[in-house]
Amino acid sequence: MTDTKLNHLAIIVDDMEAALRFWRDGLGLAQAGAPQSVSAEAVDIANLTVGDAHIELIQPTTEDSGVAKFLATRGPGLHHLCLEVPDLDAKLAELREHGYEVINDSPRERAGRRYAFIHPKSAGGVLLELYEAI
Amino acid sequence: MTDTKLNHLAIIVDDMEAALRFWRDGLGLAQAGAPQSVSAEAVDIANLTVGDAHIELIQPTTEDSGVAKFLATRGPGLHHLCLEVPDLDAKLAELREHGYEVINDSPRERAGRRYAFIHPKSAGGVLLELYEAI
Repeated sequence: MTDTKLNHLAIIVDDMEAALRFWRDGLGLAQAGAPQSVSAEAVDIANLTVGDAHIELIQPTTEDSGVAKFLATRGPGLHHLCLEVPDLDAKLAELREHGYEVINDSPRERAGRRYAFIHPKSAGGVLLELYEAI
Repeated sequence: MTDTKLNHLAIIVDDMEAALRFWRDGLGLAQAGAPQSVSAEAVDIANLTVGDAHIELIQPTTEDSGVAKFLATRGPGLHHLCLEVPDLDAKLAELREHGYEVINDSPRERAGRRYAFIHPKSAGGVLLELYEAI
């Protein structure tokens, strides 16, 4: 067993209403609250509950953010995976020690959580977010 | 609440040993059994447990399968999302009724499960597998 949990899977969308029609109305996933605008990251986010985890639908609201560039170059689809770890600092230190690249020099904080991203080149092409609830 | 659960998230890898070093040894996820060769799909698969779900690492073993072509064109990374539904046939019929495209005319069966894929153009760019335990 491990203390690491799957927290969310993020999907970049180009049409939030169409995405909600499919994931919420079509598949029947429960929506957790109304979509939220996160202006600091220039995105709108809607969360859908699947068991203990959630699917995060992300729509860029400007054209120059990282997710906007992802959408422009790769199209909508799977974007990143987020795992919850019990001790973020210890895990980041351990990964760095083994030569894996952490994108954020120090974890970011937002809405009761500290988080950092692991570079896709260290995680087999996957953009991986690690977070710890605070 | 919904009866739909997150079953697994599949990641295409080009080096299973390196992938296991990161996901299992680096992150500390528990490996569920030894990697398996699925000759019918020309892949090797290793599963890592995260809570009630798992991460499925998939490495193509030939150069002409769908996953081999994905790896060649997009590189390693997130490949598909699999949700468990209580009644697969009913869900597929409902999705077709709403105009969503199901890739498999009838569900496939393997190792105690029936499954079908929803086309990425119907699921906002995500290759989505739906399955039902049998």
